[in-house]
Amino acid sequence: MNQYQGPGLFLTFEGIDGSGKSSQCRLLADHLRGLGREVVLTREPGGSAGAEEIRSLVLEGDPDRWSAETEILLFTAARRDHLERTILPALAAGKVVICDRFADSTRMYQGLSRGDLRATVDSLHKLMIGREPDVTILIDMDPETGLARAKGRQGTEERFEDFGLALQEKMRAGFLSLADEFADRFRIVDGAQDMDAVAADIARIAEAELDQRS
Amino acid sequence: MNQYQGPGLFLTFEGIDGSGKSSQCRLLADHLRGLGREVVLTREPGGSAGAEEIRSLVLEGDPDRWSAETEILLFTAARRDHLERTILPALAAGKVVICDRFADSTRMYQGLSRGDLRATVDSLHKLMIGREPDVTILIDMDPETGLARAKGRQGTEERFEDFGLALQEKMRAGFLSLADEFADRFRIVDGAQDMDAVAADIARIAEAELDQRS
Repeated sequence: MNQYQGPGLFLTFEGIDGSGKSSQCRLLADHLRGLGREVVLTREPGGSAGAEEIRSLVLEGDPDRWSAETEILLFTAARRDHLERTILPALAAGKVVICDRFADSTRMYQGLSRGDLRATVDSLHKLMIGREPDVTILIDMDPETGLARAKGRQGTEERFEDFGLALQEKMRAGFLSLADEFADRFRIVDGAQDMDAVAADIARIAEAELDQRS
Repeated sequence: MNQYQGPGLFLTFEGIDGSGKSSQCRLLADHLRGLGREVVLTREPGGSAGAEEIRSLVLEGDPDRWSAETEILLFTAARRDHLERTILPALAAGKVVICDRFADSTRMYQGLSRGDLRATVDSLHKLMIGREPDVTILIDMDPETGLARAKGRQGTEERFEDFGLALQEKMRAGFLSLADEFADRFRIVDGAQDMDAVAADIARIAEAELDQRS
């Protein structure tokens, strides 16, 4: 059983491609498990059986097969399923939920491609999701470094990662703007440091949040 | 080219199972084509390639695989795609769009199973669909007759039609309540008549609407 009873902690990771989100999610999960916490490591889009099916429907095939509005609805359906089936039950059991991307990624991407839809994205989130993370860790880094790292990987997320430097700059600016807008829950970590130093910063943030709640 | 230029007509059919909606949709399409109108005959859930894929995702598999909220989001995504790809382009070209079920079916079904979600359904519709039919034809009939007719068919729509008489009674009441709420666009047709008489009533309604718009 979880030795820390009480409310869980919902922690999300955001950052540009190549910022090391996924690796840092795993490192934090390992670290917190080492401290005796029960951790659920998950990701978006996806994160539950139904959400993964919706994810496939959105990401496979012709990129123009769905309009921005339909895509937002599909991602919101996936997020709702993920929230109900994975995130909320884990939080109710007092676990730490670490999620690689969440609604802030939707806000950032929509801001780049269809900024006019931001109000729609927000209304839909409020209506059908209604839950923000307790803490969002933004791994902020120089886009050139991020792009070089992303290109060094075998990308399965072509639709999200096959972009150039100018777009990465916009994504960084988009995330920093969200960090400003949601300053109460965003924590910015310097992703230019080596991986261990980034992991140490993130571990300190997570432990402080857990201490505050215990 | 369509001999009647100008705005099209968006006409939906609603009614309990076995009320003859699908047959009457086809009869009206044939009738209006005979009068020289271009008609697009469609249906929900589905009605466009993307919407049909979403429809399959929702209707296949374990009925409990999606929560009511996720299902509403998926059906709204399908409806948005259907609207963008099929309905609005046809209306813009001055065609008559005849649709077998639309948002009123969602309202009615949600009213039966999760009446507390009606406000959510309405908010979501307003936010992401924002279009009501010009005319909605409700084929109203005695549920016992409807049920007998539905059972006489090979049903592929088990999730919608494999219900008993008590539920059919509630569906009828739900549709009549919607007809009252949206009295400006609902037209109630007596489905107890023989098929030709029902078709004649519907043809008169549609022709009157078209005359009014020409």
